[in-house]
Amino acid sequence: MRLGYLGPAGTFTEMAAQNYENSAERVAFPSNASITDALRNSIIDYGVLAIENSLQGGVPDTLDLLIHESGMSILNEIVIPIEQCLMVRQGFEISDIVAVYSHPNALGQCRIFLRQNLPDAEIIASMSTVAAVQQVVESDKCVGAIAPRRASEIYDVSILASGIQDEPNNETRFVVVGASDSPKTGNDKTSICFSFAEDRPGLLYNAMRELAQRDINLLKVESRPTKEILGRYIFLIDLSGHRDDPNVNEALDLIRNQADMFKIFGSYPVFVK
Amino acid sequence: MRLGYLGPAGTFTEMAAQNYENSAERVAFPSNASITDALRNSIIDYGVLAIENSLQGGVPDTLDLLIHESGMSILNEIVIPIEQCLMVRQGFEISDIVAVYSHPNALGQCRIFLRQNLPDAEIIASMSTVAAVQQVVESDKCVGAIAPRRASEIYDVSILASGIQDEPNNETRFVVVGASDSPKTGNDKTSICFSFAEDRPGLLYNAMRELAQRDINLLKVESRPTKEILGRYIFLIDLSGHRDDPNVNEALDLIRNQADMFKIFGSYPVFVK
Repeated sequence: MRLGYLGPAGTFTEMAAQNYENSAERVAFPSNASITDALRNSIIDYGVLAIENSLQGGVPDTLDLLIHESGMSILNEIVIPIEQCLMVRQGFEISDIVAVYSHPNALGQCRIFLRQNLPDAEIIASMSTVAAVQQVVESDKCVGAIAPRRASEIYDVSILASGIQDEPNNETRFVVVGASDSPKTGNDKTSICFSFAEDRPGLLYNAMRELAQRDINLLKVESRPTKEILGRYIFLIDLSGHRDDPNVNEALDLIRNQADMFKIFGSYPVFVK
Repeated sequence: MRLGYLGPAGTFTEMAAQNYENSAERVAFPSNASITDALRNSIIDYGVLAIENSLQGGVPDTLDLLIHESGMSILNEIVIPIEQCLMVRQGFEISDIVAVYSHPNALGQCRIFLRQNLPDAEIIASMSTVAAVQQVVESDKCVGAIAPRRASEIYDVSILASGIQDEPNNETRFVVVGASDSPKTGNDKTSICFSFAEDRPGLLYNAMRELAQRDINLLKVESRPTKEILGRYIFLIDLSGHRDDPNVNEALDLIRNQADMFKIFGSYPVFVK
């Protein structure tokens, strides 16, 4: 089994791919779009895409691929905690560190730790967390990198501190995509999107009626602007149940009839920690 | 009038503050939270906060402040195009550039331009777009920075190319917050949030019925996880009309009755380009 992910190795996305199926052959790609291209051309069997972060919200890139790419379904989801670690070359201690490298977003996530533990270290931006670890390995001074734990298994560095991000409840949800979705397990969710040709009161409400009347729970609702017309939206909904459940099947058919565009991203088992 | 914004000067947020009220005294703050603190303590009269980007989606930080801070209302919105520019020290040309500095996100937005026009330049991460411009000014080599146009009015640099981001439809919506919202103009929107004490089918649907039955158009709907309970959501809705319109007022009262938590962020004029 060949499993595509957004590279390089050592990122949280590689950790998600590893968690999903450790025995799979992992293939790094430079973008989410190149993963879905590879899937379409059968170069890989599955792809792993980040879809939502608990602090940052939805990943627009992935949502847009799900909306616009055909022949691709969600067959699973994986949630992993975003835990940042401070790494140095073997043998160094925190008091030796003169500078800390990372992607500015990761540095921004660890402001409190840096202020309390490394108030005098220079803070230096890197293109990515993995690039920061490479800079640590290549530097002749004692510098640190902030990066995911996985990076320390690939590069010759040791972890001095872990879970150093300011916000403890930081986790990212990934979806596994492939040619088809998953059979019913009894604890499933279904992701769909739809839009309407016109923009008038009550359209989304009418669609949601089909769910409410069949006791189908709404897990998530989001609207994304269509790229064509400002102020016109595509609605993305996660609901509980499988599209093969009779009540879900019936509700989805009725929403499809009301919508201008309608797409089922897939039915798949709910992630259980 | 004192107007707070996320600094430093030269960012898109400063451009939004300038567009809102050019004669205001602009005060730079290090974070959105410090702007709302300053507002609470009457150090500033208004604050400008980025709330949504057309490509990146909602700004979680701002949404969370609106949800949790009290005594603060949205009184206006401003939409500005995100236009990235390539800047160098005066007198240099594009063929002189040996390296390009910027925040990795801005560099990522301009991949096609960089590949086509500067294939041999070194790409170097900076902590921010404004920090990149400072590095350009201080460097003794010819290096470029990718930054907002506004930065070129503050630092002694010239623009070699503008609108160099890959995606043309990149714009950010900002809200102006203050002690109270705006009176009715006839072309207004209202932003609210609410959540329910339990998680069962139909609750959001019931709330939306109050809008649909009164012909109130939904402009945007989003759900954000509550930080307390995984899987429990806060719904954020933008609707057309002012909270002083009788039909909006009535609908909001009825939603308030159904919800566990309910908050009106404010009614304000719709942004017109």
